[in-house]
Amino acid sequence: MNTQTELAPEKTETDVETLIAGLAADARTAQRKLAQMSDADKATALHLAAQALRDAAPKILAENAKDVAAGEERGLSGAMLDRLRLDEARLSGIADAVDQVADLSDPVGEVIDSSERPNGLKLSRVRVPIGVIGIIYESRPNVTADAAVLCVRAGNAAILRGGSEAVHSNHAILAALSKGLAEGGIPEKAVQLVPTQDRAAVGALLRATGAVDMIVPRGGKSLVARVQDEARVPVLAHLDGICHTYIHSAADKDMAEQVAVNAKMRRTGICGAMETLLVDASYPEASALVGKLLDAGCELRGDGRAQSLDKRVLPATDEDWDTEYLEAVASVAVVDGIDAALSHIAEHSSGHTDVIVTSDAEAEQTFLNSVDSAIVMANASSQFADGGEFGLGAEIGIATGRIHARGPVALEGLTTYKWQVRGTGQTRP
Amino acid sequence: MNTQTELAPEKTETDVETLIAGLAADARTAQRKLAQMSDADKATALHLAAQALRDAAPKILAENAKDVAAGEERGLSGAMLDRLRLDEARLSGIADAVDQVADLSDPVGEVIDSSERPNGLKLSRVRVPIGVIGIIYESRPNVTADAAVLCVRAGNAAILRGGSEAVHSNHAILAALSKGLAEGGIPEKAVQLVPTQDRAAVGALLRATGAVDMIVPRGGKSLVARVQDEARVPVLAHLDGICHTYIHSAADKDMAEQVAVNAKMRRTGICGAMETLLVDASYPEASALVGKLLDAGCELRGDGRAQSLDKRVLPATDEDWDTEYLEAVASVAVVDGIDAALSHIAEHSSGHTDVIVTSDAEAEQTFLNSVDSAIVMANASSQFADGGEFGLGAEIGIATGRIHARGPVALEGLTTYKWQVRGTGQTRP
Repeated sequence: MNTQTELAPEKTETDVETLIAGLAADARTAQRKLAQMSDADKATALHLAAQALRDAAPKILAENAKDVAAGEERGLSGAMLDRLRLDEARLSGIADAVDQVADLSDPVGEVIDSSERPNGLKLSRVRVPIGVIGIIYESRPNVTADAAVLCVRAGNAAILRGGSEAVHSNHAILAALSKGLAEGGIPEKAVQLVPTQDRAAVGALLRATGAVDMIVPRGGKSLVARVQDEARVPVLAHLDGICHTYIHSAADKDMAEQVAVNAKMRRTGICGAMETLLVDASYPEASALVGKLLDAGCELRGDGRAQSLDKRVLPATDEDWDTEYLEAVASVAVVDGIDAALSHIAEHSSGHTDVIVTSDAEAEQTFLNSVDSAIVMANASSQFADGGEFGLGAEIGIATGRIHARGPVALEGLTTYKWQVRGTGQTRP
Repeated sequence: MNTQTELAPEKTETDVETLIAGLAADARTAQRKLAQMSDADKATALHLAAQALRDAAPKILAENAKDVAAGEERGLSGAMLDRLRLDEARLSGIADAVDQVADLSDPVGEVIDSSERPNGLKLSRVRVPIGVIGIIYESRPNVTADAAVLCVRAGNAAILRGGSEAVHSNHAILAALSKGLAEGGIPEKAVQLVPTQDRAAVGALLRATGAVDMIVPRGGKSLVARVQDEARVPVLAHLDGICHTYIHSAADKDMAEQVAVNAKMRRTGICGAMETLLVDASYPEASALVGKLLDAGCELRGDGRAQSLDKRVLPATDEDWDTEYLEAVASVAVVDGIDAALSHIAEHSSGHTDVIVTSDAEAEQTFLNSVDSAIVMANASSQFADGGEFGLGAEIGIATGRIHARGPVALEGLTTYKWQVRGTGQTRP
């Protein structure tokens, strides 16, 4: 694997487009072969890739050290350096994750449904890979392995474009991965890294309609927004996770407190973390609930009625209702009944995960039916919004769009279907 | 219904964006109510709409006559005028189609799958409407009814943008439709027509990310290409239907001839019509097959070996292999075995429908597995590529993209899903 294949800076946009077109054409050819591989052969190849990652640990860590040193020199923040840094344990975690993906069951070939028409035609819808998937990501080098193996497990080719700060790590990880995959008979071009950090290459990838079938951005809000704005290729993305927990009048006191505190405080920085607490005006234990969150170390910003529940609640501005804090801060509003809660959520939810806590079966059903988000929960913490927790295995992301796949997107979300029709010579009248 | 609501020509792009944002916001509000309506109520409302179309026939035909007169004045082609023109029979056909959509079963609420996690969380994936769908179409006024009722049947709001040449017809059809839907309790803004023919309105609709959930272009290649190029909203589109029929060495002679002639000649102008015939070099009856197509009135353009089968075969140029003729013309190539056929199809197919004719079960399975098109058929005419023929009822189009839905897209393709999670107070460790 040559890490010195950067395009010289004087290359033109056309050169970059030709480069991407070449990568995509190679990916398509490789993907067509990969699509015909059996479940067992793909699993074996992925286990070999996991082992190759373990075997290449010294090399990968040495290359990663170069990236970290360069990052320190460029003055990257501590958080960014932490995302970038690999050690034995993290690398071992990456390899273990590859083994886990290898052990997932293969969705390709599954018959979704079938029927026989009155004229004798037999129809089946059969799951097939999507094709060529572009992954655009930032500084975490583990995405190089995680995303690539999910794509390959479902029979797709991946074109990876990682952040420039992780370029040595990414090439070293891919080199190891590719060696293992090749030993298992997976075509070499099934996983490729874009060999330039030229930003124009991202644009070319995003506009490669017909050559690239889907783009998955993995990173912060600004990356995802840029991808969504520029892409002509379909994008599987999630932007914000502005998740609500609504405490209904008939909520159990202990459950309400445990679910709300967990939804916010277990990990404050994940997209499934609660950002807004809605408390029904008829819920009798509102002060205790708000107190529990404050006592747990959460800053609360509330409307007038919420402020009156506890002196420590700060005043909220209009912006707070549309803010994904990703830290130990939440907004809190008192609402008059479930309809007011539904209206607040319809106006402010980002469509990720919204929760009701109630012991009233009718309110639960109304909430689950009415809230128009990818995931709607009753009596559970929004932090369960995760492919692993849903039993799907590793996920490529949590989609908040409305097309193709919603919520945690795992292997099935990386497939599509085709119609297979078997006849006995039928012609259409 | 006011047909005089065109924006004055001096309106700016911002005005158009505000207009589209307003339509989309109204559509969203209406759609949220519509999403909660029962199957039976939606069906009843659609039957009322069909009746309202019948009742309004004199008004609709009078408005249509204005469009036809204006079109004649503008010198529209005979084919375009024919697409534009309505009469009693066509209008009755439109109303009947609305009744048929009313009688389709409602996909909304269907539980796709469900599971219980070890921690007791109960998960279900439930079908829900996509939301707000934009339909951009050309001169056929029937699309106003056809597309709108398919959207509504699956719980979606529709924003329609028809061609300027059909503006009076479209408004009259929508007025009737809306009256019937309103009688059945469907919110008025569930179906709206963009009240301006300003081309900037199409651009604004295509860029309304988050406000419009999906765009369906219905029309010719240039319309679809423009939509795909400009859209930021996901597009459900099909471009070309370059469909292949491959006659394998083990094909039955009569079947091969009947299927090939039907695939091309039943209706030459539909997207499922065969455009390229691939004949295996080992198929012994190639001359007879080519003769049958020529005798049926099909012009054939072939490679050297195809030309040697019959003197009437004209020489093909490179372009012919990538041409959707949509008339009584086909290209024909002789290929050396199934792998050569698969290579030709991989290079030239538009991913719509491709067919093998063979009595060899292994060749059939190889073809159905390997060809990467939305629809793959064995021993049947490609003209069966149609939602009705697949038992799906009316279709909004035949999608050749690889995301969300492929092949004939009927009601199910106008839905997505959400995850409903029911707990008993679980918090995430």
